[in-house]
Amino acid sequence: MSSSFHPTPRTLMGPGPSDVSPRVLEALGRPTIGHLDPEFIGLMDEIKSLLQYALQTKNALTLPVSAPGSAGMEACFVNLLEPGDSVIVCQNGVFGGRMKENVERCGATAIMVEDDWGKPVSIDKVTAAFTAHPEVKVLAFVHAETSTGVASDAKALCELAAANGALSLVDAVTSVGGINVDLDGWGADAVYSGTQKCLSCVPGISPVSFSDRAVEVINNRQHKVQSWFLDMQLVMGYWGANTKRAYHHTAPVNAMYALHESLVMLKNEGLENAWARHRQHHQALVAGLEAMGLTMLVEKPYRLPQLNLVGLPEGADDGAVRSALLAQYNLEIGAGLGALAGKAWRIGLMGYAANQNNVLLCLSALDNVLSAQGATINRGVAVDAALASYA
Amino acid sequence: MSSSFHPTPRTLMGPGPSDVSPRVLEALGRPTIGHLDPEFIGLMDEIKSLLQYALQTKNALTLPVSAPGSAGMEACFVNLLEPGDSVIVCQNGVFGGRMKENVERCGATAIMVEDDWGKPVSIDKVTAAFTAHPEVKVLAFVHAETSTGVASDAKALCELAAANGALSLVDAVTSVGGINVDLDGWGADAVYSGTQKCLSCVPGISPVSFSDRAVEVINNRQHKVQSWFLDMQLVMGYWGANTKRAYHHTAPVNAMYALHESLVMLKNEGLENAWARHRQHHQALVAGLEAMGLTMLVEKPYRLPQLNLVGLPEGADDGAVRSALLAQYNLEIGAGLGALAGKAWRIGLMGYAANQNNVLLCLSALDNVLSAQGATINRGVAVDAALASYA
Repeated sequence: MSSSFHPTPRTLMGPGPSDVSPRVLEALGRPTIGHLDPEFIGLMDEIKSLLQYALQTKNALTLPVSAPGSAGMEACFVNLLEPGDSVIVCQNGVFGGRMKENVERCGATAIMVEDDWGKPVSIDKVTAAFTAHPEVKVLAFVHAETSTGVASDAKALCELAAANGALSLVDAVTSVGGINVDLDGWGADAVYSGTQKCLSCVPGISPVSFSDRAVEVINNRQHKVQSWFLDMQLVMGYWGANTKRAYHHTAPVNAMYALHESLVMLKNEGLENAWARHRQHHQALVAGLEAMGLTMLVEKPYRLPQLNLVGLPEGADDGAVRSALLAQYNLEIGAGLGALAGKAWRIGLMGYAANQNNVLLCLSALDNVLSAQGATINRGVAVDAALASYA
Repeated sequence: MSSSFHPTPRTLMGPGPSDVSPRVLEALGRPTIGHLDPEFIGLMDEIKSLLQYALQTKNALTLPVSAPGSAGMEACFVNLLEPGDSVIVCQNGVFGGRMKENVERCGATAIMVEDDWGKPVSIDKVTAAFTAHPEVKVLAFVHAETSTGVASDAKALCELAAANGALSLVDAVTSVGGINVDLDGWGADAVYSGTQKCLSCVPGISPVSFSDRAVEVINNRQHKVQSWFLDMQLVMGYWGANTKRAYHHTAPVNAMYALHESLVMLKNEGLENAWARHRQHHQALVAGLEAMGLTMLVEKPYRLPQLNLVGLPEGADDGAVRSALLAQYNLEIGAGLGALAGKAWRIGLMGYAANQNNVLLCLSALDNVLSAQGATINRGVAVDAALASYA
């Protein structure tokens, strides 16, 4: 007999997926209905409207792509780009490199603007790139770099794109729900996000939004979009408000229940309250980590509250510490990537996971494991420092 | 305050999604763990092995694509095709047309072999197409046409492809778990399926499998795959058995719990028993429908037990009947498509939905609704005919 799988419950404080709210898990398991059922059509409309709230946009073309964030990224590129186009791609972490791959697979050219991992995108460098390449059609950048915990200035970058007659394409996977994402305020043209970060939902869905200007570009394409599954003209027909819905694919019905519930929770909490909550727990975590003697590796103005890049203390072994946290505390934190591998951890406080219990668990677990493994830290002070931050 | 969504429980006897087993829904809602958690890596290995069982193959590259069946279709085409290639596409329903779209978006040429909707793919026509086009690289066809309820001869078609030096690409979305799908016995080269049909799982995932011959074609491509998300060389790195897993995308963790549970149920029931169960309930349904005076529209040798195409009786209005079934019985059956719109229904008996209760509910509901709406049927005999079929 094959056996059912029963996961050990974990506390997810890595780069995502983050802890999923029990309310979302409960919604996820409700009975499946047909994807053309009138009740499901009504749910789709509510999800679109809730996503507009979460992204602060009136964009009509705002919907969840039925696949993970990397498919959302691809949806943005393949719909906006045609062969021969040029794109400025800002790279200051893992996901800029992935954007370059996407651009090139569209037959377009990626003009790379590179910054060190752990630093934000340089506005000056992007300005220079626009001067050198006035033909650029799209400026693509990551708002909140999940690989480093850095926020870039999305408003300035979107405005720079607009001033140069280009479209802006924003990765907001890790930012939505955790910090201010203001599509209409920024004038962003194409945005993709993920469900498994600050929305506290299960992974697998990617909300996207396109401005009217972006929709006009899509509607005036010379070539068909290379992906049938991600072709927004077809997806619009399925998710569209004003027409009889045309069958495109079968929506992941239960994942939509979960996304809806997570968006309802966000709306009822209020965006500003959600951001304040992330900030509050971030400050407590940082107070504890610094009291322990650990160093935050991102300069304060660019730190993401929801993803904290912290250096390993002397004497700590990356793999051994993370294994012990998982084995002894069922606590997952993230490894460093690229040049930061083995030198830093990424501690997530995303969505439902941004709570006091998680902060205190993480600090006391790190305190114990690092001490037991002989790393150089100030013992027994982290939790008190965090509690003082809350007081 | 925004409100949670509570779907009205339905009985799903349309073309899919089908009724999801309560066991699968319960698995779906288990706590999310990290997609690189050792427990999740173990689950991925089990899923691959269970999929090999379900598809009757030893293909090493057998895994679930993290997106619906239409993305699975696209994964097969974009990985096998390069610009300038030729593909024979068999069309005898909706999904052949979608295959053509996929072929053309790869920069390849689709040579269409068309058969009437409701008929199987003609082996003779495909043979003639190979004779006329010896350069063909891939033969693509639908094993079980969800739009008509017709089974084509997959074994003969795969063998015909091999005999002509072409790869076979099979849509098995509706067939897996309901009728015999025997990849290795057929010598099939690329296959995609769906979770929301006879696997009784939630929609949103597409199992795929590629033969060693297909993998060799993929590994020797001249051009990069146009989709980054669906590039099997990258996906293999994430799902691969023998290497350290390379991060590609974040797997839809909870959907994988559900798929695993549905595959465990299939394995424990046994493939042959599952097929026999579909046949048994199909026969009872047909007995009831025919006793009522309705006509099955697909010739007996080509009928899919899991999807039954039945003509509307005189005096029945398609939309009114389906609306009444949904409103009064919470019962969903499918509409006809294309030339069959308004003239036929598609009644699914897929996976968990293939059970006696569903058959009897569907027959008695149809009996009542059709009578109430003044259609010409033999009243009050359908359920007895079905019960006699079971006896």
